[in-house]
Amino acid sequence: MTQAKKIAILGASGYTGAELVRLIAGHNGMEIMALSGERNAGKPMADVFAHLRHLDLPHLQKIADIDFSHLDLVFCALPHGHSQAIVRELPKSVKIVDLGADFRLRDPAAYEKWYNRPHDAPDIQPEAVYGLTEFYRDAIASARLVAGTGCNAATVQYAIRPLISAQVIDLDDIICDLKNGISGAGRALNQNMLFGERAQDVMSYAQGGTHRHIGEFDQEFSAIAGRDVKIMFTPHLVPANRGILATCYVMGDPSQVHDALSAAYNDEKFIHVLPFGHMPAMSDVQGSNLCHIGVVADRLPGRATVVATLDNLTKGSSGQAVQNANLMLGLDETQGLQMAPLFP
Amino acid sequence: MTQAKKIAILGASGYTGAELVRLIAGHNGMEIMALSGERNAGKPMADVFAHLRHLDLPHLQKIADIDFSHLDLVFCALPHGHSQAIVRELPKSVKIVDLGADFRLRDPAAYEKWYNRPHDAPDIQPEAVYGLTEFYRDAIASARLVAGTGCNAATVQYAIRPLISAQVIDLDDIICDLKNGISGAGRALNQNMLFGERAQDVMSYAQGGTHRHIGEFDQEFSAIAGRDVKIMFTPHLVPANRGILATCYVMGDPSQVHDALSAAYNDEKFIHVLPFGHMPAMSDVQGSNLCHIGVVADRLPGRATVVATLDNLTKGSSGQAVQNANLMLGLDETQGLQMAPLFP
Amino acid sequence: MTQAKKIAILGASGYTGAELVRLIAGHNGMEIMALSGERNAGKPMADVFAHLRHLDLPHLQKIADIDFSHLDLVFCALPHGHSQAIVRELPKSVKIVDLGADFRLRDPAAYEKWYNRPHDAPDIQPEAVYGLTEFYRDAIASARLVAGTGCNAATVQYAIRPLISAQVIDLDDIICDLKNGISGAGRALNQNMLFGERAQDVMSYAQGGTHRHIGEFDQEFSAIAGRDVKIMFTPHLVPANRGILATCYVMGDPSQVHDALSAAYNDEKFIHVLPFGHMPAMSDVQGSNLCHIGVVADRLPGRATVVATLDNLTKGSSGQAVQNANLMLGLDETQGLQMAPLFP
Amino acid sequence: MTQAKKIAILGASGYTGAELVRLIAGHNGMEIMALSGERNAGKPMADVFAHLRHLDLPHLQKIADIDFSHLDLVFCALPHGHSQAIVRELPKSVKIVDLGADFRLRDPAAYEKWYNRPHDAPDIQPEAVYGLTEFYRDAIASARLVAGTGCNAATVQYAIRPLISAQVIDLDDIICDLKNGISGAGRALNQNMLFGERAQDVMSYAQGGTHRHIGEFDQEFSAIAGRDVKIMFTPHLVPANRGILATCYVMGDPSQVHDALSAAYNDEKFIHVLPFGHMPAMSDVQGSNLCHIGVVADRLPGRATVVATLDNLTKGSSGQAVQNANLMLGLDETQGLQMAPLFP
Repeated sequence: MTQAKKIAILGASGYTGAELVRLIAGHNGMEIMALSGERNAGKPMADVFAHLRHLDLPHLQKIADIDFSHLDLVFCALPHGHSQAIVRELPKSVKIVDLGADFRLRDPAAYEKWYNRPHDAPDIQPEAVYGLTEFYRDAIASARLVAGTGCNAATVQYAIRPLISAQVIDLDDIICDLKNGISGAGRALNQNMLFGERAQDVMSYAQGGTHRHIGEFDQEFSAIAGRDVKIMFTPHLVPANRGILATCYVMGDPSQVHDALSAAYNDEKFIHVLPFGHMPAMSDVQGSNLCHIGVVADRLPGRATVVATLDNLTKGSSGQAVQNANLMLGLDETQGLQMAPLFP
Repeated sequence: MTQAKKIAILGASGYTGAELVRLIAGHNGMEIMALSGERNAGKPMADVFAHLRHLDLPHLQKIADIDFSHLDLVFCALPHGHSQAIVRELPKSVKIVDLGADFRLRDPAAYEKWYNRPHDAPDIQPEAVYGLTEFYRDAIASARLVAGTGCNAATVQYAIRPLISAQVIDLDDIICDLKNGISGAGRALNQNMLFGERAQDVMSYAQGGTHRHIGEFDQEFSAIAGRDVKIMFTPHLVPANRGILATCYVMGDPSQVHDALSAAYNDEKFIHVLPFGHMPAMSDVQGSNLCHIGVVADRLPGRATVVATLDNLTKGSSGQAVQNANLMLGLDETQGLQMAPLFP
Repeated sequence: MTQAKKIAILGASGYTGAELVRLIAGHNGMEIMALSGERNAGKPMADVFAHLRHLDLPHLQKIADIDFSHLDLVFCALPHGHSQAIVRELPKSVKIVDLGADFRLRDPAAYEKWYNRPHDAPDIQPEAVYGLTEFYRDAIASARLVAGTGCNAATVQYAIRPLISAQVIDLDDIICDLKNGISGAGRALNQNMLFGERAQDVMSYAQGGTHRHIGEFDQEFSAIAGRDVKIMFTPHLVPANRGILATCYVMGDPSQVHDALSAAYNDEKFIHVLPFGHMPAMSDVQGSNLCHIGVVADRLPGRATVVATLDNLTKGSSGQAVQNANLMLGLDETQGLQMAPLFP
Repeated sequence: MTQAKKIAILGASGYTGAELVRLIAGHNGMEIMALSGERNAGKPMADVFAHLRHLDLPHLQKIADIDFSHLDLVFCALPHGHSQAIVRELPKSVKIVDLGADFRLRDPAAYEKWYNRPHDAPDIQPEAVYGLTEFYRDAIASARLVAGTGCNAATVQYAIRPLISAQVIDLDDIICDLKNGISGAGRALNQNMLFGERAQDVMSYAQGGTHRHIGEFDQEFSAIAGRDVKIMFTPHLVPANRGILATCYVMGDPSQVHDALSAAYNDEKFIHVLPFGHMPAMSDVQGSNLCHIGVVADRLPGRATVVATLDNLTKGSSGQAVQNANLMLGLDETQGLQMAPLFP
């Protein structure tokens, strides 16, 4: 039996950090050697996340106190902007999966535009591989640094990328209306995220094309198309813990749309295209690494609706991260990720 | 002091019936003389809706047992298809506000198309006035029969009608993505409406232009434009009791869009257009007769997003019904409808 | 027509402050002259609570900037400890309803014990009347300063006080298990109150007799009994916005228990005792000033379960406050409080 | 490698059936050979539970069409009363784990009393072993028929059994107030389980000692004590999908209570007693086979509060069933059950 790969999780006090712990606890090929949490350093994880009490985990510690020399891979689940500095300090022998936004945009100018701060590691950026596994599999397998995608960005790309590649839709009229669960906002204190504000509510946010994940759409969709592609995109908060459901309105032949998606994901373990005319629901994938996609024809000829759904904490971030880490470490890509969804 | 108008509520065992009781309990100008509920006939309302226990209400009875001769107005909150038969039996002296779909579509062929059954009262249909108060006010005031709008239909029309009237948007590219609370499905038994199925979930339904309220959009929008107007429309169930939030993607100058809406609703008591760039949230109007509308410019020139929200049980159905009844009975239009929203 | 009484609300940025605005907006006998919010001073209320946008309200201001000289009554919905200082500064001509804990406990030593700080206004304390309306009605009507009860404290007292008065239960074996909605925790930032933490969860807190409202139980129950009465009391957070449901386990003849409650509340407008064997549900009173109480006999002879429920923001705090203010201002006790519950 | 054990799940259209599929999908030692669903016979599971779409499962079929001869074990997740007939028809070579109530009560007269129907298999009843794994481990390992406990019954027993065994509490004053998630009611149509009825609500049910699981408490607690033990027990529905949290009020020395629980579960993998004074939350165990228990001392000497929580669909039913099946099949007791909880 091969020895388990030694990993660390930086930023283990947040929801994506805890989700990494959950997944790796059920993964035979990885062993958690260190967990960081600057403000919670010194505490057992059970004090920060009571649901992990039964696991035998290292105490939280400061990043500065972690010995990285013997590690195989580090997951960075840090607030935006922190990874650019930290990656620079890590030994070259350590592979890195960053779950934040620091290395997602290949163009440092685009990074500065969307994140309102200069990129602190433009020299490292070229090394980073964009972490949408199914589309960057080979590059990820040989990368030292993989930049996890935005969770919204992943969902919409699963619905739209094959349609651009297959040239079956009008590139100038793509509208994506997204509904996402509250955990995407993380565990930070924010009046807007209080139970009393979110329960029984739906609200749009980052309207008008201002959401940062649009930087990823522009980069990726334009690269596939070989020309500028700019979508309309509005996310909405819905009162659910987990999950993203993206409803995409496209102009194109509905059958061709369904065919393009079916062909693209035919061999994928985690992406399931439903029979034509069937649509997925957000709770169908809760807690799993699955993405379900449906296509329906509109009554108006030449128009289709595509719905994609995944769990933002799993397939949208931490599950994607583990999937990428599996590739980077030479493990089976699906290891530790085959749990069925939790329903209800 | 004028005597209170005598009213009856047919279909008081459902959510819209109970909402009528709630509203009329706080209305000085109406008195509830009869409540019908075929299966619950003989029971006190408190047995069917415990939250109405404190009110002095007539027991539920069968419609056949109600003496309509002394009534001023009847609210029909019945399952689709029942009002067409019942309206025929009512004395001509009684005014009728129908909350169902039976008289919404002026063209009986359109009714048959969307409801999969022939219209049982095509002779009465011409008498019916479409109940979107702000746009049919005078006709409603003099009508004997008012057909309440669909709750989704009302929400989208508040966002879109003034834009068609003012000719500020492209009529061939209107996409409305709707999120609605669960109470819109009523109190009937349906596996899909169980708590375990709906909590933590978002799902689209009636995709591809198959939702019955589209019949109302086609009818109304085409009438305003003087040509066929067909929108893309997809509703989604969200885990909230009340509320509809419609996100509408339109092609047009965002300032003109905001101006058109502001002008249209400037004198309206219940419709509030937020300052340009501000967007409403569903819980801002819970339990009230208000509709909030916001407009934001997209990063793509010539495109705007319009969001409208209202409470499906109040402004979307029972509140609209009371507002229309006020007009029909010569009462102040806002009487009994000025309660502030409940938040949180 | 009498002139409306002029009132101010101190602490209008919190949930109880907003609930006061909601109630007074529907109250013909009161006019809001000032709203305070130290951190939000200068802002319109719509910026702090979007659901109040349609109301014509004064902007928020600092307490120091309010002219109290022409006011009839001030509601203090401030964080614990602030009212003791502010009440001292108010003109003697102004009546005060305090919604906080500052004047609830008659014994300053008890205040210091339960709130871990010395009482800052022990000289004013004797003037304060405990605000459980149904039991202190006459004293409230003639008081200058009324101390609103804790919301949990009100719920349990409605269930238990008549049983102590009527001497129908064992005073040494009263166990109250309380479930309360999240809004009781207010709008302050607290990781424990984030949607992600509270949705899908139930947790006890302040276990073992450490909840501050126990100070009120000890004071009130002992006063009625003429001896020390100490109950076991454990509150639990449940994922609902509003509402408290208290399940009380008592030793006594169930019929006598029901009779004592029925007799106590026979003439009360807001307190409803259900038929013997029927139990209330939390959502039956949402948004109303009602309290529903049920009694059931246990299979074990001589034991009964009493369940009381009310809306913590209405009957449990702001509704109670308006009811008391009505008495203090010579208005009808029920004015502005007769709205039916919102369901679903 | 040993061959996987062949199992069938009868009643796979319900929530506990689907939960068995979820668990066994991640279990290397069991293979699902048949799934029954009388009304859904012929359908793929994905039509009944879309979250299981990715699994390669047999279609649903009628029980009468299943070939039981080659099976090792059958899980019966059927409505109450059905297993008594079906068990009789199964080959003697097949082991059975019944998740329903049919064989929980050893005394057929008690069964008739609590379930209002005569026991249809009193001759088989003596063979059945009560399925509370930690307390009947050896008997379960050698049993042919194991009767899974009620989910509420399991939760309360984990809190109370060791206290009776250790003789540290007063047997005549045990009060258990239970809060349970909605999935415990199953997927059957019931107006009370609609989203609109349950969201934002808490309500007690089966009050006064009428809940059927009390039959299990009476049987088990009396057996341990060697005398009649009858507790007060009231369950409440809370708006959460999964989870039971039982708050138990006991008379006894709190340290002894904590010691008794700690000693009882010291070697258990799934039952965790928290440090003295710490209390568990329902969402800490969601989706897992864990049970967390906390003890706190009351301010009143000689009284303690014990809180136990588990996931009703996992440790409370289907997880327990798999754990028992593991024992019966000679597998590792924890196989397939070590997933960490899902949070948030």
